[in-house]
Amino acid sequence: MKEIILIGGGGHCRSVIDVIEMEGKFKIAGIVDNNLEIGDKILGYEVIGCDDELEKLRKKYDYALVTIGQIKSAEIRIKLFSLLKNLNYNLPVIISPRAYVSKHSFIDEGTVVMHDVLINANAKVGKNCIINSKALIEHDVVIEDNCHISTGATVNGGVVLGKNSFFGSGAIAKEYIKIEENSFIKARSLVK
Amino acid sequence: MKEIILIGGGGHCRSVIDVIEMEGKFKIAGIVDNNLEIGDKILGYEVIGCDDELEKLRKKYDYALVTIGQIKSAEIRIKLFSLLKNLNYNLPVIISPRAYVSKHSFIDEGTVVMHDVLINANAKVGKNCIINSKALIEHDVVIEDNCHISTGATVNGGVVLGKNSFFGSGAIAKEYIKIEENSFIKARSLVK
Amino acid sequence: MKEIILIGGGGHCRSVIDVIEMEGKFKIAGIVDNNLEIGDKILGYEVIGCDDELEKLRKKYDYALVTIGQIKSAEIRIKLFSLLKNLNYNLPVIISPRAYVSKHSFIDEGTVVMHDVLINANAKVGKNCIINSKALIEHDVVIEDNCHISTGATVNGGVVLGKNSFFGSGAIAKEYIKIEENSFIKARSLVK
Repeated sequence: MKEIILIGGGGHCRSVIDVIEMEGKFKIAGIVDNNLEIGDKILGYEVIGCDDELEKLRKKYDYALVTIGQIKSAEIRIKLFSLLKNLNYNLPVIISPRAYVSKHSFIDEGTVVMHDVLINANAKVGKNCIINSKALIEHDVVIEDNCHISTGATVNGGVVLGKNSFFGSGAIAKEYIKIEENSFIKARSLVK
Repeated sequence: MKEIILIGGGGHCRSVIDVIEMEGKFKIAGIVDNNLEIGDKILGYEVIGCDDELEKLRKKYDYALVTIGQIKSAEIRIKLFSLLKNLNYNLPVIISPRAYVSKHSFIDEGTVVMHDVLINANAKVGKNCIINSKALIEHDVVIEDNCHISTGATVNGGVVLGKNSFFGSGAIAKEYIKIEENSFIKARSLVK
Repeated sequence: MKEIILIGGGGHCRSVIDVIEMEGKFKIAGIVDNNLEIGDKILGYEVIGCDDELEKLRKKYDYALVTIGQIKSAEIRIKLFSLLKNLNYNLPVIISPRAYVSKHSFIDEGTVVMHDVLINANAKVGKNCIINSKALIEHDVVIEDNCHISTGATVNGGVVLGKNSFFGSGAIAKEYIKIEENSFIKARSLVK
């Protein structure tokens, strides 16, 4: 099986591990995290280094994914994504077998689609996004790069969400609106 | 495979196409829409006429479904449903394989149950309804004819929703209440 | 197949019957309810007695589950759970095949996980809980004993919910908060 390393070993990483294990396409070779000790374990997977060692690790591993969460700002995830791209890592799309992605939609590299997500027909999701557990992305939606659609959120038909945005847990966007870049949509908001 | 024609070629139609394709019971023969040109394509399916031609098309097709959305009012969907009935079309129940409909519940003709919907025990859903993506219809609920339960909405146990109503995205109805006919429940409302 | 009796024959019981039938591990031997007549039927299953007869019924049945709902208070469910334990009934964990419980999480006895629930990695759910339809329990959450997580609710990563609490339909708890024992969280609340 292809090996992958995960960058960031917090709570979101644990959720992503659950998805990768269920998907069964990648073997998790280890976690990279600046704030953990080498040898620490996350759900049984070892911490194998910090960000400075990503160049060295590239000689051994072809695949990587950013598994740091994103609430306040997309900045750290954007920086890590660029770093991984510059080091020529492959950033796969990870999709939970419990999620549904319409064959009429498109998901770009480095994006993770968590358990019980639904991405409907003719939607487009950019690079380096988190579409979190139970989120709903309806028909004709565009999610630009580096967005986090949080747990249980609903992005209704035809909405465009600008890049680097956070769309909070349980938030709802009404049909066919445009939400600008770098937006921070609070949990449970109704965006009109 | 049985052939079906879809009346209305907008965003809701694209979602319904995704469901019909996954269900695999009907071949979509074409779209009927007054505002599109013959030969236009919706996710690969051709527009084959406008509403005036439904009588002529009946000679060729046995099955039809109203695929116009419903937000402001149920009026257009009711009119089209009656027209199709008068022309003696069969209006099937369409249920996504990703949805769950309890064997202890009942769904009437011309109603579509979209992806990830849950319809629990002892519920009853009338004719010509849309139960949209990720909606939850709990035990003992009654949804009368011509209602649209929008995305991610929750209709809790024992609720009765009167006919021709719209129940907005993410709205929640508390247990065992009666909501009158022709109601318009806003997105994210809590109905007590 | 092992036989089980259900204590409480109302709306929640009908939902649980649907789950037990789909799970296919237990045959429902009957319903015990103080307010129904012997011989009454709930989705085809007979009422076989009232609470006073649980001691006598124990000679015949090894498995039991509390199927009374819980909104105002956990008191009745706690009392029945203790009674069943004292009578040495086995109280299984019931999990809908449509739900997902991460192998990295733990569920204790007498708890029911309804259709379309998601319990993510490293979560822990106590005894005698209802995790109701479409609820989301995220990574690292702790739900203590005798809680009802109502329909469509979202308990985000790292939250601790104290025992005997009600967490209402569609309510959302933000990450890593502690909610005290005996809490009553209203439907659609945002708990920070």
